Amino acid sequence: MSFQRRNIAAMDGYVPGEQVNSADVTKLNTNENPYPPSPKVAATLKEIDSAFLRRYPSPTAETFREAAAQCHDISVDNIVPTNGGDELLRLVLTTFAEPGESVAVTRPTYSLYRVLTEIQANPLHEIALDDTWDLPENFVQQLMDAEAKLCILVNPHAPTGKLLSVATLSEIASNFNGLLLVDEAYVDFVDPAREYDSVPLAIERDNVLLLRTLSKGYSLAGLRFGYGIGSAELIHPILYKTRDSYNTDYIAQQLAAAAIQSREYAENIWEKVREAREKLAEALRQLGFSVTPSQANFLLATLPDGHNAELLYQQLKSENILVRFFDQERLQDKLRISVGTPGENASLLAALKSRFA
Amino acid sequence: MSFQRRNIAAMDGYVPGEQVNSADVTKLNTNENPYPPSPKVAATLKEIDSAFLRRYPSPTAETFREAAAQCHDISVDNIVPTNGGDELLRLVLTTFAEPGESVAVTRPTYSLYRVLTEIQANPLHEIALDDTWDLPENFVQQLMDAEAKLCILVNPHAPTGKLLSVATLSEIASNFNGLLLVDEAYVDFVDPAREYDSVPLAIERDNVLLLRTLSKGYSLAGLRFGYGIGSAELIHPILYKTRDSYNTDYIAQQLAAAAIQSREYAENIWEKVREAREKLAEALRQLGFSVTPSQANFLLATLPDGHNAELLYQQLKSENILVRFFDQERLQDKLRISVGTPGENASLLAALKSRFA
Repeated sequence: MSFQRRNIAAMDGYVPGEQVNSADVTKLNTNENPYPPSPKVAATLKEIDSAFLRRYPSPTAETFREAAAQCHDISVDNIVPTNGGDELLRLVLTTFAEPGESVAVTRPTYSLYRVLTEIQANPLHEIALDDTWDLPENFVQQLMDAEAKLCILVNPHAPTGKLLSVATLSEIASNFNGLLLVDEAYVDFVDPAREYDSVPLAIERDNVLLLRTLSKGYSLAGLRFGYGIGSAELIHPILYKTRDSYNTDYIAQQLAAAAIQSREYAENIWEKVREAREKLAEALRQLGFSVTPSQANFLLATLPDGHNAELLYQQLKSENILVRFFDQERLQDKLRISVGTPGENASLLAALKSRFA
Repeated sequence: MSFQRRNIAAMDGYVPGEQVNSADVTKLNTNENPYPPSPKVAATLKEIDSAFLRRYPSPTAETFREAAAQCHDISVDNIVPTNGGDELLRLVLTTFAEPGESVAVTRPTYSLYRVLTEIQANPLHEIALDDTWDLPENFVQQLMDAEAKLCILVNPHAPTGKLLSVATLSEIASNFNGLLLVDEAYVDFVDPAREYDSVPLAIERDNVLLLRTLSKGYSLAGLRFGYGIGSAELIHPILYKTRDSYNTDYIAQQLAAAAIQSREYAENIWEKVREAREKLAEALRQLGFSVTPSQANFLLATLPDGHNAELLYQQLKSENILVRFFDQERLQDKLRISVGTPGENASLLAALKSRFA
C-alpha cells in the first residue's frame, strides 16, 4: 500500500535546473552570480574551527539577524533567517494559509509556488499577466474574487525581469485583505536609479512580507541562506513556532553575516552584472531576438520568427552552454538566459551568431 | 488583525535547550558530543573553496547519499539527506499524515513531536510508558484504537535512554497498519554487545522509516545534517516532492560525507562516551540518585528523596553547569544529564558531592 497523502501522491515535485560541476560548461541556466562571494566570506570560512560544530548553533542565527538588521536599518524583530529563500516561502504557507485557503500568483511565475501549494493542499489561483507582462488593471479585484489568503509576487519578476514599483506594491497591500509576500530574490540587480526600496513598506504594513536571499546578490547559492523581512507580528510566529528549531547551521550563519557586511564588494558585482545585462540584451537584439527589459540577473529572450526555442536549448547544451527552456504557455518560443561574466556571455553570443547573424 | 492560522496562533513553539558559547560553562544540557568531529571533517573544511558557493549544491546531496549508502551497505534509493534530523520528522508528517489524522507517540518523549503535530493540525495520541519506562503490553492495540496513521518512537528513548530491541520494533511494524518512524538520534551510543541493527527491518518493511543524525554520534550538531533510511517507496516522495529542493548546503554535504566516512574515529568516541556514561551513572548512584540504565549519551537521574530537581538545576546553572530539567509529569523529580568528557563529568560530580555526599 502507499502511505503518501492523496495530494502528495497526485503531485509532481519541483524540478530544479540542471546542476553540473564541469568547468567546461558555460552555465547560464539557474541565475547564479558569475562572481565569487566576497573576500570577507572567504576569510571567515578560513577561520572556522570545525571543533565548534559539535555544539548546536544559535537557533535563530543571532549573528546574522544583527548584521541584517544593521544592513537594512531595522530591528532584529523584523528579520527571520531561513535555510534559503525557498524555506521562507514554505514557512509563509505553513504559518498563514490554512489548507484549503487560496494562494494567488501571476502566470507565469516561479514554478516552485505551485509545488508548495500542492504540498499543503492550497488551491492555486493564477492571474495572467498582460501582453507586456504587467499586472492586469483589476489585479486586486481578482485577488478578492479568488478569496486569496496569500498573494506571492516575485519582484523583479521571474522569468521576465520586470519590476513593479513600490507604489504599485503599496496600492495592492492597501486594498487586499490578505497577506502579500514579495519574493525579492533578484532585487539586488535592480538599477539604483529606480530607487526601489520596499523595506519601509514591509515594516509599516501589517500584511507585507519580503523574501531576500543571499543566493544571487551575494553569490551564495551553495550556502542556502535567505531571510524574511516584515512587521514583528508577522515575523514572530515564523521565528518561534513554525520554523525548524535549528534551521540554519553554524558555518552558514557566520558566512551569511560576513557576506551581508561586505556591502561595497556586493554593490560592485551588482553593477558589473547590470552592465553585462544591458550589453547582452543589446547583442541579442542585434541577432534578431526580442528581449524584455530586465531588472534581474537574467534575460527572457524570444527567438526570431521561425526558430524553435527547445531545439536551440538542446543545441546549446550539446555545445556545453546551459540556458533555461520552460515548456509553458507563452514561454515556448523563449529562453531564459542568466547573465554571466563578459567572457561567458561572449561564449553564448558566439554560439548564437553562427545561427542567427 | 492576525494572519496566523488558528492552530498556529493557539500553539506554543518548541523551546530549545539553552545554548551558550562561554568556555566557562560545563554544558551537559543538550546531548552534544563532548568530542570534536573527526580530523577528516577538519581537513575537508580546510579544503573548501568559497568560490564554489556561488553555485547551487547538489539538490539531493549525492556525495553524502553515496557515502551513507556505503556505510549502511544499502542503495542510495534508501536514503534521503535532511537539514538535521528535525527536518526529517517534519517531512514525514508532511508526506504521510493528512491534517486531522492521528500521530501516536509515547509519554514522555521528545517534545518536538508534539510541536510538529500542532503545526500541521494532527491530533497527538500519547501512550504512557509503564513504571519501568517500557511500552505497555497493549501498545499496538492502542495505536489501532487511536487510528494512528503514524507512530514515532525515539530509540534509544529520550529522555530515559531505554532501548527497544529490533524484535520489538519488528513486531510493532508487523501488527500496525500505519507508518512507524524510529528516531535513532542516539543509536550510535548503543552498546555493540546489544547487536542492535534496525536497518534491515527498514529496508525490508514497507512501513518503517529510520531517522539518523550526525548531530550526536558524529559531533556535528552545528552542521544540521540528518538522513532518513527506508524502502525506496517511502523515501522517494520525501526526496522528490515534499523536501525543499535544495535543503542541504554545499559545505554541509561535504563535511557530512567526510564524517560518515570516518568510521574508526567515530566508533572510538562512541566507546569513550559509553565508558564515561557507565562511570557517571555509578557515581550518581553512589550519591543517592536513581539512574535509569541508558543506551544513549545522557542519563535520566532521579534525585534522592527530599531534594528538588528544579532547584538543583538552578543551583547548578548558577555554578556554570547546565543540565536539563523538564517540568513535565513523571519528570519533575529528575534531571537529564548529557554525558560529557571525564573532566566535565567530574565537575558535575564535584558540584553534586557538596550537596549529596
